[in-house]
Amino acid sequence: MINEKFPKIWYGGDYNPEQWDKATMEEDMRMFNLAGIDVATVNVFSWAKIQRDEVSYDFTWLDDIIERLTKENIYLCLATSTGAHPAWMAKKYPDVLRVDYEGRKRKFGGRHNSCPNSPTYRKYAKILAGKLAERYKDHPQIVMWHVSNEYGGYCYCDNCEKQFRVWLKERYGTLEALNKAWNTSFWSHTFYDWDEIVAPNALSEEWSGNRTNFQGISLDYRRFQSDSLLECFKMERDELKRWTPDIPVTTNLMGFYPELDYFKWAKEMDVVSWDNYPSMDTPFSFTAMAHNLMRGLKSGQPFMLMEQTPGVQNWQPYNSAKRPGVMRLWSYQAVAHGADTVMFFQLRRSVGACEKYHGAVIEHVGHEHTRVFRECAELGKELQQLGDTILDARSEAKVAVMYDWENRWALELSSGPSIALNYVNEVHKYYDALYKQNIQTDMISVEEDLSKYKVVIAPVMYMVKPGFAERVERFVAQGGTFVTTFFSGIVNENDLVTLGGYPGELRNVMGIWAEEIDALLPGHQNEIVLRQDWGGLRGSYSCGILCDVIHAETAEVLAEYGADYYKGTPVLTRNKFGNGQSYYVASSPDADFLQGLIANLCEEQGVKPLLNTPDGVEVAERVKNGTSYLFVMNHNAEEMTFDAGASRQRDLLTGKTISGQATIPARGVMILERA
Amino acid sequence: MINEKFPKIWYGGDYNPEQWDKATMEEDMRMFNLAGIDVATVNVFSWAKIQRDEVSYDFTWLDDIIERLTKENIYLCLATSTGAHPAWMAKKYPDVLRVDYEGRKRKFGGRHNSCPNSPTYRKYAKILAGKLAERYKDHPQIVMWHVSNEYGGYCYCDNCEKQFRVWLKERYGTLEALNKAWNTSFWSHTFYDWDEIVAPNALSEEWSGNRTNFQGISLDYRRFQSDSLLECFKMERDELKRWTPDIPVTTNLMGFYPELDYFKWAKEMDVVSWDNYPSMDTPFSFTAMAHNLMRGLKSGQPFMLMEQTPGVQNWQPYNSAKRPGVMRLWSYQAVAHGADTVMFFQLRRSVGACEKYHGAVIEHVGHEHTRVFRECAELGKELQQLGDTILDARSEAKVAVMYDWENRWALELSSGPSIALNYVNEVHKYYDALYKQNIQTDMISVEEDLSKYKVVIAPVMYMVKPGFAERVERFVAQGGTFVTTFFSGIVNENDLVTLGGYPGELRNVMGIWAEEIDALLPGHQNEIVLRQDWGGLRGSYSCGILCDVIHAETAEVLAEYGADYYKGTPVLTRNKFGNGQSYYVASSPDADFLQGLIANLCEEQGVKPLLNTPDGVEVAERVKNGTSYLFVMNHNAEEMTFDAGASRQRDLLTGKTISGQATIPARGVMILERA
Amino acid sequence: MINEKFPKIWYGGDYNPEQWDKATMEEDMRMFNLAGIDVATVNVFSWAKIQRDEVSYDFTWLDDIIERLTKENIYLCLATSTGAHPAWMAKKYPDVLRVDYEGRKRKFGGRHNSCPNSPTYRKYAKILAGKLAERYKDHPQIVMWHVSNEYGGYCYCDNCEKQFRVWLKERYGTLEALNKAWNTSFWSHTFYDWDEIVAPNALSEEWSGNRTNFQGISLDYRRFQSDSLLECFKMERDELKRWTPDIPVTTNLMGFYPELDYFKWAKEMDVVSWDNYPSMDTPFSFTAMAHNLMRGLKSGQPFMLMEQTPGVQNWQPYNSAKRPGVMRLWSYQAVAHGADTVMFFQLRRSVGACEKYHGAVIEHVGHEHTRVFRECAELGKELQQLGDTILDARSEAKVAVMYDWENRWALELSSGPSIALNYVNEVHKYYDALYKQNIQTDMISVEEDLSKYKVVIAPVMYMVKPGFAERVERFVAQGGTFVTTFFSGIVNENDLVTLGGYPGELRNVMGIWAEEIDALLPGHQNEIVLRQDWGGLRGSYSCGILCDVIHAETAEVLAEYGADYYKGTPVLTRNKFGNGQSYYVASSPDADFLQGLIANLCEEQGVKPLLNTPDGVEVAERVKNGTSYLFVMNHNAEEMTFDAGASRQRDLLTGKTISGQATIPARGVMILERA
Repeated sequence: MINEKFPKIWYGGDYNPEQWDKATMEEDMRMFNLAGIDVATVNVFSWAKIQRDEVSYDFTWLDDIIERLTKENIYLCLATSTGAHPAWMAKKYPDVLRVDYEGRKRKFGGRHNSCPNSPTYRKYAKILAGKLAERYKDHPQIVMWHVSNEYGGYCYCDNCEKQFRVWLKERYGTLEALNKAWNTSFWSHTFYDWDEIVAPNALSEEWSGNRTNFQGISLDYRRFQSDSLLECFKMERDELKRWTPDIPVTTNLMGFYPELDYFKWAKEMDVVSWDNYPSMDTPFSFTAMAHNLMRGLKSGQPFMLMEQTPGVQNWQPYNSAKRPGVMRLWSYQAVAHGADTVMFFQLRRSVGACEKYHGAVIEHVGHEHTRVFRECAELGKELQQLGDTILDARSEAKVAVMYDWENRWALELSSGPSIALNYVNEVHKYYDALYKQNIQTDMISVEEDLSKYKVVIAPVMYMVKPGFAERVERFVAQGGTFVTTFFSGIVNENDLVTLGGYPGELRNVMGIWAEEIDALLPGHQNEIVLRQDWGGLRGSYSCGILCDVIHAETAEVLAEYGADYYKGTPVLTRNKFGNGQSYYVASSPDADFLQGLIANLCEEQGVKPLLNTPDGVEVAERVKNGTSYLFVMNHNAEEMTFDAGASRQRDLLTGKTISGQATIPARGVMILERA
Repeated sequence: MINEKFPKIWYGGDYNPEQWDKATMEEDMRMFNLAGIDVATVNVFSWAKIQRDEVSYDFTWLDDIIERLTKENIYLCLATSTGAHPAWMAKKYPDVLRVDYEGRKRKFGGRHNSCPNSPTYRKYAKILAGKLAERYKDHPQIVMWHVSNEYGGYCYCDNCEKQFRVWLKERYGTLEALNKAWNTSFWSHTFYDWDEIVAPNALSEEWSGNRTNFQGISLDYRRFQSDSLLECFKMERDELKRWTPDIPVTTNLMGFYPELDYFKWAKEMDVVSWDNYPSMDTPFSFTAMAHNLMRGLKSGQPFMLMEQTPGVQNWQPYNSAKRPGVMRLWSYQAVAHGADTVMFFQLRRSVGACEKYHGAVIEHVGHEHTRVFRECAELGKELQQLGDTILDARSEAKVAVMYDWENRWALELSSGPSIALNYVNEVHKYYDALYKQNIQTDMISVEEDLSKYKVVIAPVMYMVKPGFAERVERFVAQGGTFVTTFFSGIVNENDLVTLGGYPGELRNVMGIWAEEIDALLPGHQNEIVLRQDWGGLRGSYSCGILCDVIHAETAEVLAEYGADYYKGTPVLTRNKFGNGQSYYVASSPDADFLQGLIANLCEEQGVKPLLNTPDGVEVAERVKNGTSYLFVMNHNAEEMTFDAGASRQRDLLTGKTISGQATIPARGVMILERA
Repeated sequence: MINEKFPKIWYGGDYNPEQWDKATMEEDMRMFNLAGIDVATVNVFSWAKIQRDEVSYDFTWLDDIIERLTKENIYLCLATSTGAHPAWMAKKYPDVLRVDYEGRKRKFGGRHNSCPNSPTYRKYAKILAGKLAERYKDHPQIVMWHVSNEYGGYCYCDNCEKQFRVWLKERYGTLEALNKAWNTSFWSHTFYDWDEIVAPNALSEEWSGNRTNFQGISLDYRRFQSDSLLECFKMERDELKRWTPDIPVTTNLMGFYPELDYFKWAKEMDVVSWDNYPSMDTPFSFTAMAHNLMRGLKSGQPFMLMEQTPGVQNWQPYNSAKRPGVMRLWSYQAVAHGADTVMFFQLRRSVGACEKYHGAVIEHVGHEHTRVFRECAELGKELQQLGDTILDARSEAKVAVMYDWENRWALELSSGPSIALNYVNEVHKYYDALYKQNIQTDMISVEEDLSKYKVVIAPVMYMVKPGFAERVERFVAQGGTFVTTFFSGIVNENDLVTLGGYPGELRNVMGIWAEEIDALLPGHQNEIVLRQDWGGLRGSYSCGILCDVIHAETAEVLAEYGADYYKGTPVLTRNKFGNGQSYYVASSPDADFLQGLIANLCEEQGVKPLLNTPDGVEVAERVKNGTSYLFVMNHNAEEMTFDAGASRQRDLLTGKTISGQATIPARGVMILERA
């Protein structure tokens, strides 16, 4: 349980009463009660308010807020305020300011603005975290520490450059090893002194934000920056733990945010929390996948939905209002996928600056007679009624989809073969096929224990890290089904090619050799032609982006290309390996093909859909003490019917018993309890 | 009258004989006579020629030019040459160079290149203006001072940053007030010392040229930069006035140019002048609106058309030639909307550098046997014949459309709700509907006296400044019709939201409450469904971009949304308020709806079209001493007929009497005199 | 002959064994033999490997490579390694680092990274070239010096700025002359001291990479930077020649690369070599044109195909594999157009960094059993069989198309009349029409001797340099046919307009006056209407981009515009001048019109197609000692038939005798020998 003191689905969010007067805060209390708010995240961006110079600290206003919330019995997610430094600090100690990708020293402004290797930042962030912990260590309402906010952004300053060299010395030991790992004999890059190494940005090796001459250097710089920010987190966490070892510590993550290796981060966090901001046209399966990724960061441990908007956002190009019922629906979607909290940014909408058009529980009008507030209050009531029923329930999946940040970095940094290749999209294509069939699926790291799964899918597993291939082989030998795709097995962890034929270290288990990789021009496609009917797969499908031209070695050919000079060569193969089998999908297929492929694999492995539902009716399951909680969620704007199965089951939200043909309202949710 | 000495429509333009030899100038004189040129703007970009170092000034070449022009009896619009500093000044005194939005110190180059807060620039600009005024103060041909040129561009240098702090101290008095106005408790921005404040650009709060974290800071910086450049203008103007108090002073503006608050500028100018550069596909109504805005800067006072091209431009993506008759047509369009001059950039086309492909009265071929020259000469003759007839005539409108630069800045700087919202476009939509019905319309500031008008339309009046709401209420209470739209009444002059329900301070007069603001995704629309027929409005129309979800409070609902979750809620309301009424248009409607709406409002208020004409035949009126001059302008490439009315009226251009069904040639113009 | 020592079509390419171990190199030798590789370019990017500090040089590894290759009797194209400086040099001597277009000092990274005016770079590059020449001067296998690599990129550092002033002093002598050439009286730019002149980049006169306020300044800076890099080449060349006067020296060029004036460069090179990287959708005629341009750099002298990929590229957006047969086809296309070498980048594919996905003869799999290797080996065998047959053969063209880098710069730098105008595209339109009719065509400079040709086409000859017009007049007077187009004859070599009527200095020979230049909006077109049938030209054709509105003076009108206000005015004219004639094409016509025009001109001049072939079957000829070698190349993916003519001729590749209707396989090549 996230915190034993507070055994229900937390309901609340970011709250900044310091931006308002006391009377407003009193009104907030009244409305929080109406809405069933029971947790508030406070002190997220108050460093300047707390500390007006190097030596003065003022926590009295925070004391007041905490006391007032405590009086209402609202729990506290207490933030450390280090997500934005004060203006005076930037003025006096410019080392806290970042140097950007273009090599420009920044001035004071924005947030998430501190150089992670700034001595000044580290010094004062540590002191602040310590003072907060010491001051509030015994406060009973504090149920979570919230360190900084949405860590991210890279810095390219001299301090970072120096620390990068230190980081590299630790990683490589010698320049010889480094020169080899980066293949510096290419383009006259041999380094003879650590000091010759510079940060890779638009002034040195990179351009366009994500293109580089040397993938090895740029990959390491991403690792180093991710680690540098993680060091900042760990420094604060340790300071907090020194005073309050029993209060869990988190920081709010951001789903598929590209810059940080969250799998590495999650190891240092007690609980994963994240901010979910889909836009109106984000596929529902994409949101589901992001929740599962967050759940997968700590191998299935329930996570916190730290932020979502109750109404509109402000920073998207087109900020549509969440349609009636959608806030509730998406809140339950989070819970269905493993969240044990439902929290908002923000509880009261701000009056000025760039988030003033970001929705809130309490809107600018200030009273409770808004659609948004009513929906919040209704949900608050429901969550209170749910109590701790679902808390800590786990999701049990037999299918896993892999995702890896370093793989993504390496793919994005590489020059060629096609700018149309988007790693996250390829991962989503497979996830979406599983989602549409209501197959419970985990999103996992490349380090995850595979023995739990029957089917593991690793789309575009371009980078194969040490030991990975062995683990895949063991998994398949022991009966597992492993699927990978075109452009996999190409490089090692330094983006050096594994010689001897693609897919390199995976060649043995896949039983194929990829001789060529052909990139299709925009608008061009090839065909996947089944050699014979296989389950629902028959005839031909389209594919594109990249086409590996492969040879089956030990593998069996299930489908061939239908066009171009490699017409008739394999595009889908199956390799028996020990007790299991591996599938190689040599191009990026259309959705119909993937539906059929997934259906076949699940059929083969006896993995069943949770339910059969019409389009847009999502199903996800959490299980606790042998009881299954089946979340049925209708994303359609119309009522839908579906077959709930023969067994009788209770809908936790309505108390009704459901079985057989069931009807779910537009944007409705059911939580079917099955013993 | 612009200048009593010169009582006709001035005809001429920018002239740079210093770029040529004497023989060419002699030839110019011959051709100016052929063309009827009687005014020349000289000395616009000659600072380097005049001043070769800190102490040397050479005006002898300018003496020669002035004398030569005087000999031809050509009047002079004498510029001060401060629109571009000399290279030596940039080299010796780098403080004259700007720092750009990216934080880069610029080097010598271009024009409009001086930091407005540079001590060096201010010092030498002032000296130069003074020397010019002293030298030419008694010259009888000088009818106008032309200060600098097309002021614009922001600077972000250290001098500007320091002056910004001074400007802020004057505006806010205390840091407490500033912190409150900017809502700096958001994102840890509290300032404890004025020196902590930095200029907002790509290195601090802004990005993409026009996006910001803190609207308050960025809004003030725009005000400050507009003021800084205005200070430069005022400094030169005062210096000129010291010697020649009776010669009017102007600087050439640029219509809807975004960076300067021209309403504030116009107060410091004797006469408004501007440069009109529509492209071939600019809507004619947009040009008309820009003329009316320039006329509105000084509440209807006639203005100068300082620049237009006789033929082609050079700086647009596609520089089409003005079709035969179009230069004349557009010249009269300017006059019809309030111009008392018709002037060109340029009289002779330059031989090199970036404006060599900008058309001129005298083209590169150098002789008078060009289409462009012939058209100029014909117009010159016509304008001589018109004499002072139209001079000083005013336009009398009963309908006004509001436009406000600070409102525009705030809208553009805000993050959300939709990037599809374009303030100028929304203003133009309403203007266009009026234009198409030949309703005489003023473009006015938010400070204008409203009592002159029957109908005032303020599209997207997002920012409501102190006293504005009261003035609107008084206007409506006294019988006026006020129209505003979605996303109005949201913030105060610091972009802080007016709490208590949108449209904030306008809620009382509009009688509605806007609960939500929904942004439509690209390609999406909603519908406006009339509750019952209203004049020509019946059935349904499309609308888009933003949809306010509103509640009628005291207002009556005239039309409802036809789709989405707010189907059936009001989209068009009318509120009776005192003796008048106010209309709220909750979304951005299609053109047909606006035509109908405008027709109804004018009908209700007894505002009549000037004439009924077919598409593309524009009508505008100027009135002098009780005589009406009705300009009829055919923008079509074909002859058109229209009903000129029963009364007999004389076309000033042909001398013919016109009444009943009249025929106007392709791109033709009539000026119908009606007693 | 490129080098008498090595009398066959060289076959090999870039080879970097220093990136690999010895065992790999041994394997390479085996495979080179299999592939018929007989030349290797080595030492291209090894500066850091050779020189680890200011005083230490290590050539032993290079000795080893050279000896090993020599043992296999492989010839050497020995590079000087100065295309990328070592990291230590950048660290210790920052003057080697460039300042970029944005004014940012770069750090170490990439390649082609040295400031051409850096004293440090020049010093050490010269020493290195000298040491290499001295060490290997007597090595018998060295057949070519390859200086640096793909020179390019401009620098804007202080050293360059200072050298620019020196360069300007040499060019203009006095500031008076410079001020006049740049028309600095425009926009107050008069320079009173050379030191006031700054480099034109984004901080001064330019923006968007290629837009400028002062064309004169920017044009001279391009000339200066092209010259500065050329000085670097010459410095190395001279050092090499000091030791090995008989070994030819080249550097690899890049076709239509915009930044360097290759016509000027070629004068300093013994042999032209270039890197040919078409993408899958590059028109075949564009590649042919680029080959001809490279051939034209030294007036027809055979050139080297220094680089092409055997398989895929890596740096294009979509890197498609070369289809089977295409590598061979494109190799012969190069030879057909004048190449005497067929060389690859690269012989072995690299294991890491940004070119790891660039194809190679030896792919990552490492063995010879790949399609790419097999195709390479087959071609290697064919080229050995061809021996020296074709070597040194020339192409004899009676038609020439002009191309000029300075003209291109001036066109691109000019502001107006249309961003749709693309000089290279316009040149290609004419070349393509010739190509499609199998008319042998030279690409020539504006300085080329015209007397060799019957037809000379100079599309958009905007800049007319001193003496050019006289040479055109002489050419036409003596019977030649000269074609030019809209927007020609406008400026002199400083981009100053030639006054008195366009096309300026060409007006006399063209017999027309262009009064106006109209730019069409996107999507708009005009028509070319023939006054009467002329050969295959009849009826009307479309045209666009720009329309000159012209008057025929001495010229005869062949076609008129079909629309707009200049309907009925001339769009195609012919002027008899002496014994010849000149054609003016006043707009940019469609492909059908150009086909007809070219056919008529060739017909008039008795210029015959080499053969008549169906679409996609290209024909080019080389001639040696009176024997013609006709290359027939089928770019289609299907077999084609064509009429090979009555005479019997031998296909050098198959030994078969060909005549009458002949069949050529998909992507097949024939070399028909005709005595």
